[in-house]
Amino acid sequence: MLSRQQLISQIKQKKSFLCVGLDTDLDKIPAFLLDYPDPILEFNKRIIDATQDLCVAYKPNAAFYESYGVKGLHALIATNKYLPKDCLSIIDAKRGDIGNTSDRYARAFFDESAGGMNFDAITITPYMGHDSITPYLAYEGKWVVILALTSSVGSHDFQYLQTNEGLLYEAVIKKANTLAGNDRIMFVVGATKGAEFENIRKHAPNNFLLVPGVGAQGGSLEEVCHYGMTSECGLLVNASRSIIYASNGTDFAEAARAEAQSLQQQMQVELEKAGIV
Amino acid sequence: MLSRQQLISQIKQKKSFLCVGLDTDLDKIPAFLLDYPDPILEFNKRIIDATQDLCVAYKPNAAFYESYGVKGLHALIATNKYLPKDCLSIIDAKRGDIGNTSDRYARAFFDESAGGMNFDAITITPYMGHDSITPYLAYEGKWVVILALTSSVGSHDFQYLQTNEGLLYEAVIKKANTLAGNDRIMFVVGATKGAEFENIRKHAPNNFLLVPGVGAQGGSLEEVCHYGMTSECGLLVNASRSIIYASNGTDFAEAARAEAQSLQQQMQVELEKAGIV
Repeated sequence: MLSRQQLISQIKQKKSFLCVGLDTDLDKIPAFLLDYPDPILEFNKRIIDATQDLCVAYKPNAAFYESYGVKGLHALIATNKYLPKDCLSIIDAKRGDIGNTSDRYARAFFDESAGGMNFDAITITPYMGHDSITPYLAYEGKWVVILALTSSVGSHDFQYLQTNEGLLYEAVIKKANTLAGNDRIMFVVGATKGAEFENIRKHAPNNFLLVPGVGAQGGSLEEVCHYGMTSECGLLVNASRSIIYASNGTDFAEAARAEAQSLQQQMQVELEKAGIV
Repeated sequence: MLSRQQLISQIKQKKSFLCVGLDTDLDKIPAFLLDYPDPILEFNKRIIDATQDLCVAYKPNAAFYESYGVKGLHALIATNKYLPKDCLSIIDAKRGDIGNTSDRYARAFFDESAGGMNFDAITITPYMGHDSITPYLAYEGKWVVILALTSSVGSHDFQYLQTNEGLLYEAVIKKANTLAGNDRIMFVVGATKGAEFENIRKHAPNNFLLVPGVGAQGGSLEEVCHYGMTSECGLLVNASRSIIYASNGTDFAEAARAEAQSLQQQMQVELEKAGIV
């Protein structure tokens, strides 16, 4: 489990604010891994071994594991155990339900004695309001990462609606920040949103933002940093497919490392520009 | 799998629009069941056997199963297989993510060859917009049940916000109804919302509404029917705790049946009042 201060110090030490997304797909991993008893886990372990000094967080996407049923859940549980302690472990589950049900999802992902997993953070969808968020905050030190402005085309359907509390995504940020401090609450903001980060920082000046969409989805790291970086960094930039599927040959782990290193180096430049390292 | 016409005909035949929620909790089921190899499944089977002629749908709540890790997933998969074919099977998962990830959740719950389950319908949270809904619609004949106005106190945080497209929940209903017909799209509307159903029917005149909140959460069946029933019924009213935990003794299945029967009888009165049966 990483506190806010520990996360910031990891960022400074590794000169990186990279989150590696583990969207592990049996159709995309190197074919030779399919001979292992648990190919998903084997792939994840090698990706983790090859990247852990270059990133500060890992983010398995629950849907990929769920789509393989029981064997997927076994792989997710084992991956969770394998994640290095100096990296933030985020389960990208995008759950959101009434209080007594959110309490169950919290047990599933936060309480090892219940669901078998002990993630540091979970992504949450805010549509059902505050009681869909607070049950996770009952777990001391755990983080809740709330969807604010997402990278998908569907983000335009509702998130940008003008409401009597500002744009919907602004209303979400404002409400969420009344529930706990920036040592517990992060927001998801898509990298494709560029200048929108400036507006987000008005409402979330010091929250960490989890930023998907660099790489496969086309967002610009430089733009994200220009508009979104704070004096403590305040960003976790996620890349999934561009790293983990950099090669599908026997060199996949080295290729993933090279891709992660390229991102780390770009991040180091941004951290130096901002005087953080 | 039940089509809209088959669902309506089941409602007429059983004189019921009851959905039984399977929020199965090892702390609440009768203690003697804990000696069985799979207590969750054993409990669910007996509840299903005792209620299937009185209801038209079952709705396992994914969170409860997930909170038991691998054994919970085994129980959910086995429960899915056990559900009677003349009832709609709804997985209450409240998923919502970008297209490629929603596609994975669809495989998890709709494609037996992938995740091991073959539910007829899934609950979806709409925050991320249309591309978080459409991947489920690619599965012919399956239903998507979209959160509109929920029964929880947090529903007031965002769902009632006035936007330039009406209240947020109205914008959700309008958008969702552009994606598919009322043979594929339902909405979740909490039973505690009373007269609000009248407004919802302006935007969703013929969609089925899945209505939680009767029973434990205090909603009135009569009010829901008064404001929400259509000439084809158009309602699936869910009760979970009030039925499945009617007793925690050896008579729990009979007690669940009695509670389900009492609701079915109230539903029959409403169906007769509306001239549907």
